Amino acid sequence: MRPLLLLLAAFVPSTALAVQGDAHADPVAPVALALVIVLLAAKLGSELAVRIGQPAVMGELVAGVVVGNLSLLGYSGLDPLWASPSLDMLARLGVLVLLFEVGLESTVGQMLTVGAPSLVVATLGVLTPFGLGWAASAWLLPAQSVYVHAFVGATLCATSVGITARVFQDLGRLATAEARIILGAAVIDDVMGLVVLAVVSGAIATAGSGAAFSYGAIALIVLKAALFLAGSLVIGVFLSPKLFHFASRLQARGVLLALGLAWCFLLSWMANLIGLAPIVGAFAAGLILEDVHYRGFVDRGEHTLEELIKPISAFLAPVFFVLMGMRTDLRAFAAPGVLGLSMVLTVAAVIGKQACSFGVWRPGIDRLTVGIGMIPRGEVGLIFANIGLGLQLQGRPVIDRPTFSALVVMVILTTLITPFALKASLGRKKRS
Amino acid sequence: MRPLLLLLAAFVPSTALAVQGDAHADPVAPVALALVIVLLAAKLGSELAVRIGQPAVMGELVAGVVVGNLSLLGYSGLDPLWASPSLDMLARLGVLVLLFEVGLESTVGQMLTVGAPSLVVATLGVLTPFGLGWAASAWLLPAQSVYVHAFVGATLCATSVGITARVFQDLGRLATAEARIILGAAVIDDVMGLVVLAVVSGAIATAGSGAAFSYGAIALIVLKAALFLAGSLVIGVFLSPKLFHFASRLQARGVLLALGLAWCFLLSWMANLIGLAPIVGAFAAGLILEDVHYRGFVDRGEHTLEELIKPISAFLAPVFFVLMGMRTDLRAFAAPGVLGLSMVLTVAAVIGKQACSFGVWRPGIDRLTVGIGMIPRGEVGLIFANIGLGLQLQGRPVIDRPTFSALVVMVILTTLITPFALKASLGRKKRS
Repeated sequence: MRPLLLLLAAFVPSTALAVQGDAHADPVAPVALALVIVLLAAKLGSELAVRIGQPAVMGELVAGVVVGNLSLLGYSGLDPLWASPSLDMLARLGVLVLLFEVGLESTVGQMLTVGAPSLVVATLGVLTPFGLGWAASAWLLPAQSVYVHAFVGATLCATSVGITARVFQDLGRLATAEARIILGAAVIDDVMGLVVLAVVSGAIATAGSGAAFSYGAIALIVLKAALFLAGSLVIGVFLSPKLFHFASRLQARGVLLALGLAWCFLLSWMANLIGLAPIVGAFAAGLILEDVHYRGFVDRGEHTLEELIKPISAFLAPVFFVLMGMRTDLRAFAAPGVLGLSMVLTVAAVIGKQACSFGVWRPGIDRLTVGIGMIPRGEVGLIFANIGLGLQLQGRPVIDRPTFSALVVMVILTTLITPFALKASLGRKKRS
Repeated sequence: MRPLLLLLAAFVPSTALAVQGDAHADPVAPVALALVIVLLAAKLGSELAVRIGQPAVMGELVAGVVVGNLSLLGYSGLDPLWASPSLDMLARLGVLVLLFEVGLESTVGQMLTVGAPSLVVATLGVLTPFGLGWAASAWLLPAQSVYVHAFVGATLCATSVGITARVFQDLGRLATAEARIILGAAVIDDVMGLVVLAVVSGAIATAGSGAAFSYGAIALIVLKAALFLAGSLVIGVFLSPKLFHFASRLQARGVLLALGLAWCFLLSWMANLIGLAPIVGAFAAGLILEDVHYRGFVDRGEHTLEELIKPISAFLAPVFFVLMGMRTDLRAFAAPGVLGLSMVLTVAAVIGKQACSFGVWRPGIDRLTVGIGMIPRGEVGLIFANIGLGLQLQGRPVIDRPTFSALVVMVILTTLITPFALKASLGRKKRS
């Protein structure tokens, strides 16, 4: 290990990734080097994962954990990587393109056939973790107020579907009923989680300032979210065939790809505008688009949109997963009081989502797989925890540093467990 | 025009592109919206350009000019676009991927057959504009010192091959001898321009500080540049087949694309490390890779590297060209004293590069096309002008604001002229 580190240190001095003050130095250079490291780490990790029979994304995450924690071994030359705003933005775009690609592989019709189970799964997957999270917080943090418990519970509601979608993709199982139920539930879940967060934050703001608790504001959020989802589906289903049919008459090259990406980014932006996660918009954008909409392009010999998107997501999505791994600060596990709380929260998070399996009553659908697929909290959980860090209650943040660290560890563990558990669960189903 | 602007203003309020302070707002949202606007503008522009028989890149540039100057019509909601660091980084990565793609379409062997004419073309294309730029500056800025004249001359040396490469690509003419001579000359030109810049900057630093003028430092730059080019070619030609042959035995998906991109970004970073433009490294990376190196991947049914890179460059390269257009501040033309100086500099820049055509003595090669293809200064010229703005001589910047504006206008005009002139020149050759 030591000689390898010295070699790395010789090749990548600690200043190589920092932006240079020199006027001739191009700001793209440190980003280019960062991408070299991230891409090579991703492929090395995914190769090792595939060799031991695990999904490739698992390897990318672990490769990220290794790269991000080299400073524990005394080499900090790669530390600027996880603070790079450019890499962060590429990762965020990567997860949008990935969810768009996943959405393209499903149709609205297919999603509607799993609408009812998805709704029940999502409802159970929000209520149970919320209750369990509250209970865990009340048990281990008895000195804290009821608002802290509620906020910890809210953080456990979120589902981050990026990891699960990649695992299903890696294993070629995106077309299964389980995958569709999870994807549908994750979208509904995001809306519900948002409502829970809005209610809890609103209650905290009221408690802190003495202002009137506004049911109206919460109703507005619910309404906006429902309108966005229903609206984008209905309008999109009617509008997108016309749009792409018109575009197929254009002569410039690359129109299909540019229009597809613009559509994906537009719905991502709109989702965020009304307070939903951008990946919900990206997924909806892919869902709405059907092959038939751009048949005009394919008929004249162009690639399909899926074929064109695939290399872009193959380039950018690993950046997201490696970066997520890199942000896993292994030192967080060692902070006092964090380990116990984080373990209990992780158990609550995992068990809480297993309630989802009771939402699946159809024969032939693997309940365990659905429950496991809902486990990862990913970046949505981190966003929630971050909001808690910023919210003030009687002059102190609602989520203090140790609780935040415990939530981060919970997010890490649920994210790292999922590819492994999902693979095992799918294998079990295959054998039976 | 007015109703269209109002519609745009209603849809994109002036705050939509700014980063939101709200904790729940995802920083990817304004970037996503920016990409929607840039991608739609790019395709609208390229469609119009193709319809009137011009290269698509011309349309992307002009679309950028329009989007970037909407504030002249009273709508400033899109102004944050050209200050967005994320969009800037995507554009920079886009031009790297584009030059990599162009490099992939050529081989080292093909480049060596045009090595001698490229060297002569590059030499003439550096010396003549340097002399003409010096003369123009001496004529119109008689009060300025000899260092200013030298620096203006140095700014005129640079060749930005991105535009020319795209025009040849748009017209399907990248395989012609003219295209290869220009690409080879642009690489050599970049090295020579760097030497000229180093000499002039060194002389100015000496004049300013009284320190000894260091011939050693300049010799070092020349040596490093020569070593990089020769070294990367020689090592790359020997190393890359082994590397890709080894990689073809890996089982993870997407290895070819990840490795290809990592190779491109690695050489881009190394080029910048020794003071060359990153695009020189990206082009060299593509040049070194030959189809045969990754035959192992293609044999097992994967796409070729070119097929995989194409969608990525189709996504990112238009961002570069639209952004370059957007940075064309039409108000710069109106600054006092700028118009006259800029016109003379533009004429010097255009005529200066026509000397390149005397470097082509082989029959069957169109000299005029070579001369025109060398015209654009693009971002390399802007980088030079920017360095001049930062260099101090007796307490004042070597390049003052009006001279800088004139240089910017020169860069804009040479960039805008080229697609149009190149298309006409290639059409003339075809007819004859």
